[in-house]
Amino acid sequence: MASLAVHSKKHKVCIVGSGNWGTTIAKVVAENTQQHADIFESEVQMWVFQEQVHIPKDNRHYKSASDQPQNLTEIINSVHENVKYLPDIPLPHNIVANPDLVAAVKDATILVFNLPHQFIAKICQQLQGHIVPHARGISCIKGLAVSDEGCELFSERIGHELGIYCGALSGANIATEVAQEKFSETTVAYAPPEMDSRHPTPSGTPLPDAKGEEIDMKILSDGVQAGKKKLTPLPADYPPLHHGNMKKLFHRPYFHVYLVNDVAGVSLGGALKNIVALAAGFVSGLGWGDNAKAAVMRVGIMEEVKFGKMFFGSSVKTETFTEQSCGVADLITSCSGGRNFRCARMAVEEGKAIGVIEERELNGQSLQGTSTAYEVNSFLRKEGKEKEFPLFTAVYEILEGRHRPEEIPDLLNAGG
Amino acid sequence: MASLAVHSKKHKVCIVGSGNWGTTIAKVVAENTQQHADIFESEVQMWVFQEQVHIPKDNRHYKSASDQPQNLTEIINSVHENVKYLPDIPLPHNIVANPDLVAAVKDATILVFNLPHQFIAKICQQLQGHIVPHARGISCIKGLAVSDEGCELFSERIGHELGIYCGALSGANIATEVAQEKFSETTVAYAPPEMDSRHPTPSGTPLPDAKGEEIDMKILSDGVQAGKKKLTPLPADYPPLHHGNMKKLFHRPYFHVYLVNDVAGVSLGGALKNIVALAAGFVSGLGWGDNAKAAVMRVGIMEEVKFGKMFFGSSVKTETFTEQSCGVADLITSCSGGRNFRCARMAVEEGKAIGVIEERELNGQSLQGTSTAYEVNSFLRKEGKEKEFPLFTAVYEILEGRHRPEEIPDLLNAGG
Repeated sequence: MASLAVHSKKHKVCIVGSGNWGTTIAKVVAENTQQHADIFESEVQMWVFQEQVHIPKDNRHYKSASDQPQNLTEIINSVHENVKYLPDIPLPHNIVANPDLVAAVKDATILVFNLPHQFIAKICQQLQGHIVPHARGISCIKGLAVSDEGCELFSERIGHELGIYCGALSGANIATEVAQEKFSETTVAYAPPEMDSRHPTPSGTPLPDAKGEEIDMKILSDGVQAGKKKLTPLPADYPPLHHGNMKKLFHRPYFHVYLVNDVAGVSLGGALKNIVALAAGFVSGLGWGDNAKAAVMRVGIMEEVKFGKMFFGSSVKTETFTEQSCGVADLITSCSGGRNFRCARMAVEEGKAIGVIEERELNGQSLQGTSTAYEVNSFLRKEGKEKEFPLFTAVYEILEGRHRPEEIPDLLNAGG
Repeated sequence: MASLAVHSKKHKVCIVGSGNWGTTIAKVVAENTQQHADIFESEVQMWVFQEQVHIPKDNRHYKSASDQPQNLTEIINSVHENVKYLPDIPLPHNIVANPDLVAAVKDATILVFNLPHQFIAKICQQLQGHIVPHARGISCIKGLAVSDEGCELFSERIGHELGIYCGALSGANIATEVAQEKFSETTVAYAPPEMDSRHPTPSGTPLPDAKGEEIDMKILSDGVQAGKKKLTPLPADYPPLHHGNMKKLFHRPYFHVYLVNDVAGVSLGGALKNIVALAAGFVSGLGWGDNAKAAVMRVGIMEEVKFGKMFFGSSVKTETFTEQSCGVADLITSCSGGRNFRCARMAVEEGKAIGVIEERELNGQSLQGTSTAYEVNSFLRKEGKEKEFPLFTAVYEILEGRHRPEEIPDLLNAGG
């Protein structure tokens, strides 16, 4: 049934973060708020951590650029380009860069978090008491925090800190490629609280298809965040934030968006794939060919599923990993040319420790995969579940030097 | 419950075909019949299309090889190597090469078909009346026959012709890599007729786990072949052919086997992946990066699932494509360095028709992907379902020159 309701208010969007990926998502969202003027206010606020930057001499907008550094926000707002973090990409003029976090989120009903995870705590602290109480969030921050205490989703942490519902966006995406409008897909996990529904339905009612953009809101909570904080319902004078409208916020002709409810699954895929990419790299380094690599990837996806279901319960769906961009596609990309894959392969080919390769290849940066492998192993050991994840455990043991990559088939055989 | 039954008879295995892949599977099976002497007779017959071949001068077994050509079967049986189709791989001595098809299948209760699909009709004709009536088959022949009349599985055709049940084996496998004992996985689809069960159970009973090698046989038919011919039950003095025992026939430390019931799904993956590999190649040729390629692959898997469910009914399971070697892993391999992928990429990079590339690169051989794309399109058009498979249709349209690879995102967007 098409919703014919006309809503007196529109959603205002703020992008919290303005790096490479943050600016890219701001571009995507700002294109869509212009296109869907019945749902969203055109202006998109983008909070920018203020910096003084030089405009490059060859910038097409600033032919007579001075040598004086200028505020990054002022540059973005005048030349409509993030010259520091997303150079050469023209931004829609309805993006407003704002150095004042509290001012940027004023009246925003949709907060899109896109910044390095180590800043979440501080940003949330600064936001407390300044956001619209019925705001809803989407976290574009990849991965999750795994420690011996447990696994915490970044979306969940943001939701807890701010007392709002927060979903997640993750997929096989590289910011620059999306910014250049090269084709890719992504997955948005958004299971809005039942209270947001205008037409409450019994628990277990099938969710509307992501394509059904005109369907009235009948989406139920996935339970991940339910009951932990008292949420403020979305007032009835706003357009509902169902899958159809969330799709309108992110979907572009070059950036295809699929909506799911499984926030944990979407976040897990982006973290655990890095362990699998190490395993794929080890096997590739042995010269075992593409089929051995594909086998390791397949086993890896299935361990991701198992991990999700074991530690996040029934809200985690197999198909989030096996059918979505955030799962299988992101893994494929990471095992093609990603840094975890490449460094692991080089380590085996050259017979060196991966730390040596890491230092040589990454200019002081560190591999996500090794730290995730250690964190996940430590957590699994504490839970007594190491043996149920033979691939994750094999990667850890290989990193520790207790097993060789050649033993992966036997280690999987014993486990499965 | 462990089965403690002791069976007076053992299964005798014949491999029908002795090319690169046929000889490799013979090696795998012969290693296993030695290891599981309680279930299988050690000797494995391998039917060989007789040829006169020269033994290479540098063959390690035949230092004084004469210049006279010899029968391939005699060479295999004396030097235990298929010098023509699988050189440099020592074969187990319990493989017996046999040029006489009828003699090779004598008393065999398990027939493993592994030969080019164009020989199926002739071979089945020759076998009629000469096989054990309660024999069971496994087809290792990739793909299926698609025409305007419909889709026919090779396993199904064999089953019909011979009046036996026939399953299928397919996975991300290259014969030479498996023969060299490089790690890979495969999927065996085997849903044996209900009549084979010693302990009939009501329809819908969950199948035993593929790991449960000791579980009594409780496997039901998947309906694909049921009721089309009167099958002869497996006599009770043979060990049951449940998933556990089929796994014992094919699983090796370097060749991990997973059992499913979905014969159609296993066969479809091996055929439809070639269309997807063309699409992945087109997108790669545009320089759109690994994420665009991964997106096309993801969409491709989902169209494979849809095709299977639409035309083969409920016996086809999503997870055969999304979780098994025959599905996602085989697709990953084909989109890494397979010939369909490579030729499609070169065609776009060089701005040439794929036929030109095919001729230049393949020494007179033709791409599987293009013929499958045409056959599948012709079938879909006849069914009025072209629009429901936007990726398969896009590949066909691009091959026909009616669309450009750059339009793939829009074609998918319109379809989805």
